[in-house]
Amino acid sequence: MAPSRTSPHALTAGVLFQLVRGGEAASRAELARTTGLARSTVSQRVDSLLGLGLLAERGGGPSTGGRPPTRLEFDAGSGVILCADLGATHCRLAVSDLGAEILVELPAELDIAGGPETVLAWVQDRFGELLAEAGRTADQVRGIGVGLPGPVELTAGRAVSPPIMPGWDGVAVPAHFAARFPGAPVLVDNDVNVMALGEYWASWRHTVDDLLFVKVATGIGCGIVSGGALHRGADGTAGDIGHVQVPDAGDALCHCGNRGCVEAVASGGAVARRLVDVGVDAHNSRDVVGLVRAGNPQAVELVRQAGRLVGEVLAGAVNFFNPAVIVVGGDMAHAHEQLIAGIREVVYRRSTALATRHLEVARSRLDDRAGVIGCAVTVLEQILSPAAIDDALAEAEAPPEEATA
Amino acid sequence: MAPSRTSPHALTAGVLFQLVRGGEAASRAELARTTGLARSTVSQRVDSLLGLGLLAERGGGPSTGGRPPTRLEFDAGSGVILCADLGATHCRLAVSDLGAEILVELPAELDIAGGPETVLAWVQDRFGELLAEAGRTADQVRGIGVGLPGPVELTAGRAVSPPIMPGWDGVAVPAHFAARFPGAPVLVDNDVNVMALGEYWASWRHTVDDLLFVKVATGIGCGIVSGGALHRGADGTAGDIGHVQVPDAGDALCHCGNRGCVEAVASGGAVARRLVDVGVDAHNSRDVVGLVRAGNPQAVELVRQAGRLVGEVLAGAVNFFNPAVIVVGGDMAHAHEQLIAGIREVVYRRSTALATRHLEVARSRLDDRAGVIGCAVTVLEQILSPAAIDDALAEAEAPPEEATA
Repeated sequence: MAPSRTSPHALTAGVLFQLVRGGEAASRAELARTTGLARSTVSQRVDSLLGLGLLAERGGGPSTGGRPPTRLEFDAGSGVILCADLGATHCRLAVSDLGAEILVELPAELDIAGGPETVLAWVQDRFGELLAEAGRTADQVRGIGVGLPGPVELTAGRAVSPPIMPGWDGVAVPAHFAARFPGAPVLVDNDVNVMALGEYWASWRHTVDDLLFVKVATGIGCGIVSGGALHRGADGTAGDIGHVQVPDAGDALCHCGNRGCVEAVASGGAVARRLVDVGVDAHNSRDVVGLVRAGNPQAVELVRQAGRLVGEVLAGAVNFFNPAVIVVGGDMAHAHEQLIAGIREVVYRRSTALATRHLEVARSRLDDRAGVIGCAVTVLEQILSPAAIDDALAEAEAPPEEATA
Repeated sequence: MAPSRTSPHALTAGVLFQLVRGGEAASRAELARTTGLARSTVSQRVDSLLGLGLLAERGGGPSTGGRPPTRLEFDAGSGVILCADLGATHCRLAVSDLGAEILVELPAELDIAGGPETVLAWVQDRFGELLAEAGRTADQVRGIGVGLPGPVELTAGRAVSPPIMPGWDGVAVPAHFAARFPGAPVLVDNDVNVMALGEYWASWRHTVDDLLFVKVATGIGCGIVSGGALHRGADGTAGDIGHVQVPDAGDALCHCGNRGCVEAVASGGAVARRLVDVGVDAHNSRDVVGLVRAGNPQAVELVRQAGRLVGEVLAGAVNFFNPAVIVVGGDMAHAHEQLIAGIREVVYRRSTALATRHLEVARSRLDDRAGVIGCAVTVLEQILSPAAIDDALAEAEAPPEEATA
């Protein structure tokens, strides 16, 4: 049955659900008062929502005579979300509730170049184990969120020419989950967007409208929040700052084919290569972070310099976008004092005075969990929207279709 | 009396007004059907809106028996907006209706450095004349929109350290209009934001979510539309690209105190100065445009080169923001073939393939009227919002306050 489409202004059950979820109303009486709908209409719609399991009733609000009013609550435990934050060489999987609270999680090594068949089959096996660990079952899964380390075509959940994901070009991720988790919507986005959304949702949404999340790891990328919403751009490539050229930073060859890209001179891999050049053994971001923590002076110097180079690119973004805060995450942020110091040094010097008047440069608060929380939020924003709730209700209440030959 | 605050989800008269204005409902019956409100509630709220003059009734919809239903229409002619798009050396003033349709307009020379007293008194005299020309009176003015060539603190309508507006720093514009147009809200924004909004509203809002509007004139600036809304940034300075340094473009001293800013090497004034260097007489953007139109080869070459320099700055913005379209406006866009060719040349070479797959670089369609139309839209978005309508109704229906003491 085709989902019913209603005006965005109609006070559907989905809208009433938002009012309860957002704390604007906590009883049928408050819903009627807030919306101006008749009490009987409210009750009918609330009953539908109770049937769907998204709202729960708790007895014992203060009585005003007669039957004591019941309190309505959003039941975040009524379903779970599966979250997969996939990087080039490692990943984090998790099960969250419908409030983006992580219930169980698993950090693991991963070779994304193993290809979609191998990687996604492995992810599903781990999802099964994590569900069991959380005491949940597959039929409680309300959605799956996936972050990929490359460009993603959002509507199809398809990887598009991802430079560090051989074998994934054109692969639509959702189909891979259909057999094991049928009916669960699968939402796929770029890993940096997902991290930005997680960070914004968990730590900043109540105080800030415009935020940049910069990931500095094997690659360098940026997630953009404008006016409280993720800005993905016309083709979903917004925040793709890794291949901006940095003036006077040498002409190291980038995997994109150009020279002098910030990713080629300031990523974890680039710093590791420079360390090797000066006789220090390092292969990747984590080696670099380990050396910084151990106080290796070359590593400290090079990470600070990497911060400055990232700052060169961000200085332009700050003039252009005027964010309230830049959040720095990714592997390299574990050496955050040096990295952030380098970024600040250049941004405060190179951006305009007006744009940096109130600018904060902060370390990621969620750290390695930004991605999985972002995966959960990506799914929740979709499945708990008024339109999605109304569609679910229409489907639940439709008479079963007749078998027609 | 304090305005009443209601839930953003309540189906107030203001929301019903939006449904009629947006074409979603055109009668009381359709409003009841769309919203689920009782017919009597709808009628009560529609009557209030008719009383305010924002809706009008037209008889003669198709009858279903009984009294023939009347059609409801938004009456864009029920009030007017005064618009002032002020530049450094010239301006455009206009009177629009409530649909941002320009009724009468006046382009004129202006010396913004004359200071706020002189300039704004002059603007008000012209407003009076334009109103008379349009056959309207001051009591029909529903709002005033002003664009200024410098940074603006939005809430107070105050110019903030504007580099090319001596005497305006800290001046709150709205107070200057209070005596002559009491009660009319005065909304002030940066001229480039206003032009971006006008251009987006008039030509792109139905097809595009993410747009950059680049003004190339005496200064260089950029207005940003993200997800259909103007992105002003945390301090209102978003799009301030004039002082991004362009590599290898020389070290011309900029009025901001730095060297090599794109505004110092690619604005109309910069091109005029370079023309003088090669023995061609030119003082400003318009002289440059005149020379290009007359086929002066040095001017053609230098405008093309200015386009390339602007393109250098935009290439980073395209990677970062991934707009669907870049609209080029401002005086210099009158020499648009050369300017846009230069911009395209660099943007398509320097931005990533993914971010430019569908990117369009287009000339402003509104041309010199983008600013005044944007001023009108800025005011309309505020005064016709549901909350503003509900406040106006509350005020209209409140009993007159008793004189106390």
